[in-house]
Amino acid sequence: MTTPGAGVRLEDLPLRESLRGKSPYGAPQLDVAVRLNTNENPYPPPPELVADVTAACEEAARNLHRYPDRDAVALREDLAAYLTRQTGVRLGVANLWAANGSNEILQQVLQAFGGPGRTALGFVPSYSMHPIISSGTQTEWVEIPRTADFSVDVDAAQLLLKEKAPDVTFLTSPNNPTGQSLDPADLALLIDAAPGIVVVDEAYAEFSAHPSATTLLATHGHKLVVSRTMSKAFAFAGGRLGYLAAVPAVVDALQLVRLPYHLSVLTQAAARAALRHADATLGSVALLAAERDRIVPELRALGYDCVPSDANFVLFGRFADAPRAWRAFLGRGVLIRDVGIPERLRVTIGTPEENDAFLAAAGDVVEEIA
Amino acid sequence: MTTPGAGVRLEDLPLRESLRGKSPYGAPQLDVAVRLNTNENPYPPPPELVADVTAACEEAARNLHRYPDRDAVALREDLAAYLTRQTGVRLGVANLWAANGSNEILQQVLQAFGGPGRTALGFVPSYSMHPIISSGTQTEWVEIPRTADFSVDVDAAQLLLKEKAPDVTFLTSPNNPTGQSLDPADLALLIDAAPGIVVVDEAYAEFSAHPSATTLLATHGHKLVVSRTMSKAFAFAGGRLGYLAAVPAVVDALQLVRLPYHLSVLTQAAARAALRHADATLGSVALLAAERDRIVPELRALGYDCVPSDANFVLFGRFADAPRAWRAFLGRGVLIRDVGIPERLRVTIGTPEENDAFLAAAGDVVEEIA
Repeated sequence: MTTPGAGVRLEDLPLRESLRGKSPYGAPQLDVAVRLNTNENPYPPPPELVADVTAACEEAARNLHRYPDRDAVALREDLAAYLTRQTGVRLGVANLWAANGSNEILQQVLQAFGGPGRTALGFVPSYSMHPIISSGTQTEWVEIPRTADFSVDVDAAQLLLKEKAPDVTFLTSPNNPTGQSLDPADLALLIDAAPGIVVVDEAYAEFSAHPSATTLLATHGHKLVVSRTMSKAFAFAGGRLGYLAAVPAVVDALQLVRLPYHLSVLTQAAARAALRHADATLGSVALLAAERDRIVPELRALGYDCVPSDANFVLFGRFADAPRAWRAFLGRGVLIRDVGIPERLRVTIGTPEENDAFLAAAGDVVEEIA
Repeated sequence: MTTPGAGVRLEDLPLRESLRGKSPYGAPQLDVAVRLNTNENPYPPPPELVADVTAACEEAARNLHRYPDRDAVALREDLAAYLTRQTGVRLGVANLWAANGSNEILQQVLQAFGGPGRTALGFVPSYSMHPIISSGTQTEWVEIPRTADFSVDVDAAQLLLKEKAPDVTFLTSPNNPTGQSLDPADLALLIDAAPGIVVVDEAYAEFSAHPSATTLLATHGHKLVVSRTMSKAFAFAGGRLGYLAAVPAVVDALQLVRLPYHLSVLTQAAARAALRHADATLGSVALLAAERDRIVPELRALGYDCVPSDANFVLFGRFADAPRAWRAFLGRGVLIRDVGIPERLRVTIGTPEENDAFLAAAGDVVEEIA
């Protein structure tokens, strides 16, 4: 079979100038025994959750010929109830918004509050999709380096936020890929200093004992968006459900830019089913946090340097040649992540067996490339 | 419960200027007996399709903790096989791309080939999301009016395309909300005249006997995108699956702007299950086309003017006051669509019983408001 147009090259197309020469984002999806590279929850959904999701999809499938609820009201009610329990802040359906992964949430925030002629600012290294989604929405990206230990210098950051005056500021807590959280008191200072909207990206919040930034909605709601995801703690990466908590006016604003019917009936139904099992699923979060606290001292005993982490991953090193070390782990059947930080690699916390395999490889690698 | 931030108003937020005063897109979702307003397929999925979707979701649910295949290869292979059968043009996985509804497909096309400083052009009235998604991607929108009978004057259009030189041109065939198709010979002339990318939006193609624009990919692939959806003919509006056929370089370009993991495992699995039932589902398309061809003469016999339609809807009138006529239908339990065209309303073809109810209402309305 000849594929039509196989002779047309990318450079023959009238692509936007800013995209020329770029590569698609994404970690390698390799078929390796131990995959500790994308911060997934390693525990498969328990049978009773699978059964509930299946039943929910069956019911939704009977109406597949009809468009979904455009406003996803029932799902947002369930998310509000969950987040109220998890953060202790009473939230209602008007405070919640959902989309196909937190990436789509962030894209909508930037479409509404960023865009051409506006700027977004982040403290790097942080989640690498922040600059990519800024670029995709034509928002100018400004980055401030974190300190040598990958924390945010709150005093310096306040001055810089006033000086740079970004329209959208990203604060990630716990920060991916470094692992540290920001306390609400510091977040409040940073939001006060930032002139525009502040997105606190809490993708990994359930792994941390720090209070959520939702505690600031009552005082800082005119500037604050707290984004979350079901991909990590909820073991729902395949279901693609991101959400945010904000004041109702922010949710209204996002409805001006969302694509109509963006959330399928299956996504809405499956996410609601998964939320009904929140207590069981979050049990795995405690296991993963305990494993993290087991791994870090063992890595240190092997001679590695570890950044303190509140999340389900650890940034460790230091390697003279991180890409070479990444390949050395891969050669031992352990896929971890080279996030582009010199001398460091990131490992996701897996099951105890996976973590043992990782630690065994880490012992080999430290000898091989030290 | 007090909702945090209920006192913050939309106008208090630093929303983009272009969004101020706008309202969210979307037809009213009203609980009415006969819903003929969003061009859905009225036939629910048959039990064997529901069973297959359910089984596919159950299998997918067991791996919900893992991210989906970012490139949706298996789904794109199935879409290529379907489109090859349906259009007679041999297409491979490299020619196909999929997203959460054709709206997301169009958004990605505009992110890659439109955007700030670029223009998109359409022949109006047409699908109202084209200008909205252009605006959402900061692409300047240019519109050319169709002729009095809602067709495209191909000679005039060629001159205008050369003069306006849009970066992205939308040609909708069959056109929503008016119903007429464009022949490939005319499409070829228009693509030749257009300097940039041409999107042929074939959301309703299965309802039409006209050849698909995919027949032009071999000759015009360096400029052509054919967008499709499973929402209409496939009775999969709730599943949210849009796709496109293009040359492989276009698919490569879209991977530079797509959000990673945009298609959930459930979406991919359910769409593949639905595609396995294509022959049965498309049987309903023949029924709906036959119903359309029954309704149009009956409407005309009642004194209505109907635009000839190749799709699963009919634009009819003429009403001195279309919004009043829309309310008169609603008062009789029949929800149709006021698409904003003076003197006209659009009705979706439903089941024979729904169409009878619509025709009975049409008989009343013509007397009431004539």
